[in-house]
Amino acid sequence: MIFPQQPSGMPTAKYLPFDQQIKVDLPDRTWPDKVITKAPRWCAVDLRDGNQALIDPMNSERKMRMFKLLVRMGYKEIEVGFPSASQTDYDFCRELIEGGHIPDDVTIQVLTQCRDHLVERTFDAIKGAKTAIVHFYNSTSVLQRRVVFGLDQDGIVDIALQGARLCKKLEETIPETKVFYEYSPESYTGTELEFAVRVCNEVIDVIDPTPDHKMIINLPATVEMATPNVYADSIEWMIRHLERRESLVVSLHPHNDRGEGVAAAELGYLAGADRIEGCLFGNGERTGNVCLVTLGMNLFSQGVDPEIDFSNMDDIRRTVEHCNQLRVPERHPWGGDLVYTAFSGSHQDAIKKGFEDMDRQVADTGKELNSLVWGVPYLPIDPHDIGRTYEAVVRVNSQSGKGGSAYILKSEYGLDLPKRLQIEFSGVVQKRTDSEGGEVSPAQMWELFSDEYLPSKDAESEGWGRFRPIGHTVESGSEGKDHITAELLDHGRQITIEGWGNGPIAAFVDALSTLGIDVRVLDYAEHAMSAGGDAKAASFVEAAIGERVLWGVGVHSSIVKASLTAILSAVNRATRDAD
Amino acid sequence: MIFPQQPSGMPTAKYLPFDQQIKVDLPDRTWPDKVITKAPRWCAVDLRDGNQALIDPMNSERKMRMFKLLVRMGYKEIEVGFPSASQTDYDFCRELIEGGHIPDDVTIQVLTQCRDHLVERTFDAIKGAKTAIVHFYNSTSVLQRRVVFGLDQDGIVDIALQGARLCKKLEETIPETKVFYEYSPESYTGTELEFAVRVCNEVIDVIDPTPDHKMIINLPATVEMATPNVYADSIEWMIRHLERRESLVVSLHPHNDRGEGVAAAELGYLAGADRIEGCLFGNGERTGNVCLVTLGMNLFSQGVDPEIDFSNMDDIRRTVEHCNQLRVPERHPWGGDLVYTAFSGSHQDAIKKGFEDMDRQVADTGKELNSLVWGVPYLPIDPHDIGRTYEAVVRVNSQSGKGGSAYILKSEYGLDLPKRLQIEFSGVVQKRTDSEGGEVSPAQMWELFSDEYLPSKDAESEGWGRFRPIGHTVESGSEGKDHITAELLDHGRQITIEGWGNGPIAAFVDALSTLGIDVRVLDYAEHAMSAGGDAKAASFVEAAIGERVLWGVGVHSSIVKASLTAILSAVNRATRDAD
Repeated sequence: MIFPQQPSGMPTAKYLPFDQQIKVDLPDRTWPDKVITKAPRWCAVDLRDGNQALIDPMNSERKMRMFKLLVRMGYKEIEVGFPSASQTDYDFCRELIEGGHIPDDVTIQVLTQCRDHLVERTFDAIKGAKTAIVHFYNSTSVLQRRVVFGLDQDGIVDIALQGARLCKKLEETIPETKVFYEYSPESYTGTELEFAVRVCNEVIDVIDPTPDHKMIINLPATVEMATPNVYADSIEWMIRHLERRESLVVSLHPHNDRGEGVAAAELGYLAGADRIEGCLFGNGERTGNVCLVTLGMNLFSQGVDPEIDFSNMDDIRRTVEHCNQLRVPERHPWGGDLVYTAFSGSHQDAIKKGFEDMDRQVADTGKELNSLVWGVPYLPIDPHDIGRTYEAVVRVNSQSGKGGSAYILKSEYGLDLPKRLQIEFSGVVQKRTDSEGGEVSPAQMWELFSDEYLPSKDAESEGWGRFRPIGHTVESGSEGKDHITAELLDHGRQITIEGWGNGPIAAFVDALSTLGIDVRVLDYAEHAMSAGGDAKAASFVEAAIGERVLWGVGVHSSIVKASLTAILSAVNRATRDAD
Repeated sequence: MIFPQQPSGMPTAKYLPFDQQIKVDLPDRTWPDKVITKAPRWCAVDLRDGNQALIDPMNSERKMRMFKLLVRMGYKEIEVGFPSASQTDYDFCRELIEGGHIPDDVTIQVLTQCRDHLVERTFDAIKGAKTAIVHFYNSTSVLQRRVVFGLDQDGIVDIALQGARLCKKLEETIPETKVFYEYSPESYTGTELEFAVRVCNEVIDVIDPTPDHKMIINLPATVEMATPNVYADSIEWMIRHLERRESLVVSLHPHNDRGEGVAAAELGYLAGADRIEGCLFGNGERTGNVCLVTLGMNLFSQGVDPEIDFSNMDDIRRTVEHCNQLRVPERHPWGGDLVYTAFSGSHQDAIKKGFEDMDRQVADTGKELNSLVWGVPYLPIDPHDIGRTYEAVVRVNSQSGKGGSAYILKSEYGLDLPKRLQIEFSGVVQKRTDSEGGEVSPAQMWELFSDEYLPSKDAESEGWGRFRPIGHTVESGSEGKDHITAELLDHGRQITIEGWGNGPIAAFVDALSTLGIDVRVLDYAEHAMSAGGDAKAASFVEAAIGERVLWGVGVHSSIVKASLTAILSAVNRATRDAD
């Protein structure tokens, strides 16, 4: 070491290393020699484990959107709640069943503790479903036995068996429902393996599964406590010691406390598990459940079909963000805003050469791109496969030698672009620097920005696109909807449109629909460009127009006119590019 | 499977599994039997790999703050830039050296490609430093050899050796600087191991390191391409085949494309590496570099001193957020907002019992908490150790100050308060906690906020103040000013006012002046409270009213009504307080 690191002074002595807590000993492990070649059976627990960890748990509308998203993506097992612990979860479960929202090939799963009245309420909740998985659990760890339950191992086994027996009994009261079982020794990672396998085997004896009607044994990393190879060792050890393996589905449920949930899932799957429980974009308690998007896309990038459809990643992300009211981070694997983006000059150069090589191969072989082997440096997959465009891949910042465009627009022109608009605009700049080379001065940057987003100065010119705003009137009563009358130039011809909505933006979108223009506003932001009530406002609107998602920008002293102009900016850009 | 999953239809055939690209064969691996007992040598690359992946790269002020943070935390090796590729990096390197900012026990590291003029410029950049690591690299992967360089293996080795030889020569020109070397076969994970070890060994021969003056061989997962056990196997294989091991420092540099960067670092370290390069909170290209905070805290939670001080995690996080202009996600391991928080009742109950048990042990043994073994369910570490309070485990209270209330209003109620309004509102909260004491729940926080800023539900009540909005009409022509007609309740009596201005806000301010009310709008901001054109908008207006400056808030589905209500909110607050 050049200069040695120094002790941190942090109180390390109070933490016991994992290997001094739980013994996991498997020197003849076989999993490190294996490779994943097939998707596991997935179970999405967004509506239960994910939901219970939200600052603002989902209401019925958000729950239904999440459920429908999961179904649309291809998940066949969906844990929909903890109905005996939450009235909202109970009601949602009933709504799913009574409203006929569960497709024939989808099984709902419900969680319950092993206490009698909770198990009973759980069977009430699933009554009428064609199939259902009853997931019962009790905590088995050394720490929880001592601190929470004050019970010895036999006492903990009794809790599990009492739950299992009650389940079997109640099953007879709902003969029209095909019931499957899942048992979790909760806090499994803090449980001695000998005890974990004992409680599981005793539960298995009571449930009495068969190869034709298996039960699920779920081994959760309720808290991630060690490196993922240790979890994998423990899974392989358990599988060697679980009885009636042919009648079991061994399931993993990793959390992410050490940031290794994805690795734990994959290594545990190599170790012989069949099934993985997780949440989209890794929502869930504390650091989250393992991310189902990352796991699925990791398979895809290795040529293994995840059996889940990720082809519209940004739509998935937006829905998840709406349901969870949490943002997906910019660097989240496969789905974040920045993960297919290169700023550095050498990366950009290599990517460009990679694309050129793919093009050449297409030309030389006459094959389609998707039947060639993908190979572009720094792009582990083709962004097209998840619905991203190539424009967002290569972007400009000062590290690419061209000046941070967002920074310039902010500092020199007072425009504070939202993150996703920054990304979009850097693609515009890139197109220019690719074709003309050289540096982009602040004045040129502004010109590029205005040319792309703002009305051309010459009102006669159609450079900006199809529409130009003229004037508008908005009427807003004390109750009910706003009414807008807007005058526009449409290809230079003056027209008047009108519409209704909860505010001028919604009313204007309604008015545009009378022209056959389909606009959905996904996001907007607005800010004053300087101090004072007379200051101009900058309005930014992200809109889905037909199948495209793009931004529009409006600048005006009136916040309404700025917003309406921003919408027209997005519409103009969509139609302009289509020409 | 209850109901089988279906093919996704995604184009999986175009991706070649990793094991068909690169052979990593090590059946007699030893790393899975090892456990980490000591911190690796760290190198923080935030100022280089992290910085080059930012939308808005750091300016000199942000660079210096990041450098000082890294020094304060205890990092002894800091990669400060790519001075030959970026003038900003060059200037910062000079500033560090000439300004005497580098402590005696800290070594700066600079990156360079192997091209002559870049290597020369690099040595110019470090001139005058007491010690420095020159980190030279070239890309070695199968893909980049073919697509980017069009060279065979010998050609690639030549590039590396030419760089190494030039370094050795230039070293003599700066005798006052003790120069160390790091070589990276870039895109190592896409390189055949036999070739990777060949190019490294030939470079080692040229650099000629000794046990007293080692060189660093860095094996980057430039793109993460396989499960982390494969990376670990490859590291163990390399270490068996690298020559002069006693004169080498083997370094890891994982990226996170598959979400397994942390696991790759830890398993690679088990496999025999000595050193890890990464960034705070996992900033870096695409999905980021491996997160140094997660790696360090993972060690700490196992009773191993990370030799880095994380005792003020939120300060570290704030500084990183300022420097990178990227938010640390809520669920980021060890540092995110939500990672020590329990929302579920059963978790909260277990945590409570855990705390009680710790208290009992303190009482029974007479020892301090930090000399006992930590054991609280769902809390892998004591939040106190990183500067968090126990209150935050179950809720945020008034003691979290303005950050806390802003956090609650944002996360629980979707209101993103401008900074100065946060400060104003914290005074409102403070007044309440001072007079009544105790904690403020999110619901109470919201009540305080609505009472202060938003209209009272009871339209008859004048609790909110003098004015209430009813309706308005705004007319906007193609040129000139907007005209507003607004109906208000003034002390309960309906009135109509009108005015003109460059937009509805200015027109409304003009209309208010007809009542003798003098309002100057100083700032405003507005945002959608969720996705969709029908979503509500929150409008924040900072206004000078007479001699006072205060904020008003309006929430409405119409952006206009939200803004006008915000102005009335400010006016009402001014007159109310004056009463």
